[in-house]
Amino acid sequence: MSPRLETTPDHIATSARRVMARCDELARVSSARGRIERVYLSPEHARVNRLAAEWMRELGMTTWQDAAGNQFGRLQASTPDAPALLIGSHLDTVPDAGRFDGIVGVLIGLEVVRLLRVAGPDGSWRSPLPFAIEVAAFSDEEGVRFGKALLGSSAAGGVWNDEWWALTDADGTTVREAFLDFGLDPGRLGEAARRPAELVGYLEAHIEQGPELDRRGESLAVVSSIASARRFQLIVEGEARHAGGTPYDVRRDALLGASEAALAVEAICRAEHHIIGTVGQLEAFPRAINVVPGEARLSLDLRGEFDGERDRVWDAIARELDAIMGRRGLRWAAREVHNAPAVFCAPLLQDVIREGIAATAPIEPPPTLFSPAGHDGMAIGAITDVGMLFLRNPDGISHHPDESVSAADVGLGIRALAEAVLHLAAEPS
Amino acid sequence: MSPRLETTPDHIATSARRVMARCDELARVSSARGRIERVYLSPEHARVNRLAAEWMRELGMTTWQDAAGNQFGRLQASTPDAPALLIGSHLDTVPDAGRFDGIVGVLIGLEVVRLLRVAGPDGSWRSPLPFAIEVAAFSDEEGVRFGKALLGSSAAGGVWNDEWWALTDADGTTVREAFLDFGLDPGRLGEAARRPAELVGYLEAHIEQGPELDRRGESLAVVSSIASARRFQLIVEGEARHAGGTPYDVRRDALLGASEAALAVEAICRAEHHIIGTVGQLEAFPRAINVVPGEARLSLDLRGEFDGERDRVWDAIARELDAIMGRRGLRWAAREVHNAPAVFCAPLLQDVIREGIAATAPIEPPPTLFSPAGHDGMAIGAITDVGMLFLRNPDGISHHPDESVSAADVGLGIRALAEAVLHLAAEPS
Repeated sequence: MSPRLETTPDHIATSARRVMARCDELARVSSARGRIERVYLSPEHARVNRLAAEWMRELGMTTWQDAAGNQFGRLQASTPDAPALLIGSHLDTVPDAGRFDGIVGVLIGLEVVRLLRVAGPDGSWRSPLPFAIEVAAFSDEEGVRFGKALLGSSAAGGVWNDEWWALTDADGTTVREAFLDFGLDPGRLGEAARRPAELVGYLEAHIEQGPELDRRGESLAVVSSIASARRFQLIVEGEARHAGGTPYDVRRDALLGASEAALAVEAICRAEHHIIGTVGQLEAFPRAINVVPGEARLSLDLRGEFDGERDRVWDAIARELDAIMGRRGLRWAAREVHNAPAVFCAPLLQDVIREGIAATAPIEPPPTLFSPAGHDGMAIGAITDVGMLFLRNPDGISHHPDESVSAADVGLGIRALAEAVLHLAAEPS
Repeated sequence: MSPRLETTPDHIATSARRVMARCDELARVSSARGRIERVYLSPEHARVNRLAAEWMRELGMTTWQDAAGNQFGRLQASTPDAPALLIGSHLDTVPDAGRFDGIVGVLIGLEVVRLLRVAGPDGSWRSPLPFAIEVAAFSDEEGVRFGKALLGSSAAGGVWNDEWWALTDADGTTVREAFLDFGLDPGRLGEAARRPAELVGYLEAHIEQGPELDRRGESLAVVSSIASARRFQLIVEGEARHAGGTPYDVRRDALLGASEAALAVEAICRAEHHIIGTVGQLEAFPRAINVVPGEARLSLDLRGEFDGERDRVWDAIARELDAIMGRRGLRWAAREVHNAPAVFCAPLLQDVIREGIAATAPIEPPPTLFSPAGHDGMAIGAITDVGMLFLRNPDGISHHPDESVSAADVGLGIRALAEAVLHLAAEPS
């Protein structure tokens, strides 16, 4: 017989309302007036960690901020050294962000703890399951500040690369300096890495960040895999010249080369299935209205369902850039700032999430989606099994103030994830 | 009989060396380490004005900074209220500039004063001609800080537009606030305007900022007219979306629209004769590597020999932008930040400059060039006749650290301009 969550629709609705209200509360913690922006190792990062820790402690969890600035809370099992099921997502945002991406996953994790916890013999709250439950609020999933995504979960996943210490933000501050400014000791970074034996697995609820569930009219999906991703910073070099006096035949205009490059990325990726490339950043220098740009910098974010496809498309883009820049007398170079192989969700965790969704609605079978968006699970996958639950994201608008998720779908997500945890606990280990 | 400059090649060579050394000295006054940048109403602007004023006073000139921050020096004629011949150019620069654009014209003006001045009966230096000689160091030709060029010379030319007070720099500082910060009284701006009756004419020496003289192997040219110019700030609006989860068919990517726009400007202008369009600035927002840009801003600098041609080309560009943005589901808008009609150099001043050049070399006739680059004469042309002398600019590299002019050509330029002034003095008035 399958385990069932002992709760009422009212409890779930209260939990969902609390998640929505806390999303609003976290949205007010921003470095920018009138819009949401929270980046890694910022004062806002410290503030949301403090809030999350407070909410964790209210649930009877023990809390700590790890050596990379990730906030953790742990609901002990009856055996103190039991391994933990990790439930989490991230609290950092893109610039001018919505209020749900990442955040809602952390808060759903807390509500799952609330639904499952029981009072122990000494009156303290504990997990009734054969494993502890930890909630992780990762600190840098988006990679906005240093251009490298997943810094927080990479530290927790033990896949930190020491070259990242030298990455700089827009002001020239290095990761190492930012650690010190935040009050973290770079020399202790290794302590953030979790050991596989400590963990049962990792579950994450997240808005879809795409329109697929909305198009199908469904609330929840099981995630099959998380995209293979590479990110590059491209630089195009030409020659800065006077905009009036320089005839077209002697111009080497870096901005026009970059413009052709951005359009080439679109044309090449559109022709592929399940490959998506985006130029999110482009800037020309010396930034003067009357100077032919001598340099342009642009970013490339490339995602695919499979690593091989993604790499083949990058090779095609690189060949096209060679041709464009050659015709224009420009040079170009790429620096890879992120490379994450596709992460496949563990079949067992996919199954328990599928059963969790099935408990909330008579959909048979619940939809299974591939995630073109990256998630913390990509880094945590290095040390434990990963499972993900997607929530419907109306019109697929994410990374934008209009990003949304309904309270009803959040309630279904809370219930599905709690049911999934119970199913996992019922599995023969 | 034509007047001839009474001087020796040694004097000219010394003057040319002084100009080159002072260009080096001014290049050290910069807001940026390792490169040259001096913008309007900055601390660097104040410093170069003080240097120029010192050099003017050493020549026996009376000096003043006008109500718009332009630095003037005047070498009196024997009659104190004689009208003045104005010789000048500008001391502000583009970002990452060369050291000669504008600067060399101010310094050549000072050397012309040095060659022509005589000691008066009271021992003070004076102009031996029927007019005083003033040297003007204009403060904002490039328009880098506020996006609107010729702010300094527009004030002197009496063509200031009160809407400009509200223009802002990258930090949001308005022109009005910058005046106050610099110690200027916006209420007294009108005092900067020169009256036509005070002036005999305006002469300016300037590097060509194009490769034409270098290609012909010649040192100096008479300028026939200064380009008709318009400048626009364009904004493209789409929708910011998550870079992973948003399929191409629902994207409205403002950066791709802007990229197409930049390439369309190039394609349309290349097909025209004597029309040149440049996109010098382009930036995408929200500037995140993993967000489809929802907004892009770009500049357009459009120049032509004739106003009508230039306007016809702008109309063609606007139609093409309508088509591009329509296809991509984007909106676009343009704000015109600069509009200057073509300025034709006065035939008399062209003649005296031609005679001045002829006195330096047996070129018959000296070359005459149209200037696609804008110059302070465009604004000063509102109150007096304008004449310009171009100096060879090796490889036409300007607005770039490699911008150059040879000391030999500077010497020829000093001599030609001094000869031109003598020819002008010999004209029946």
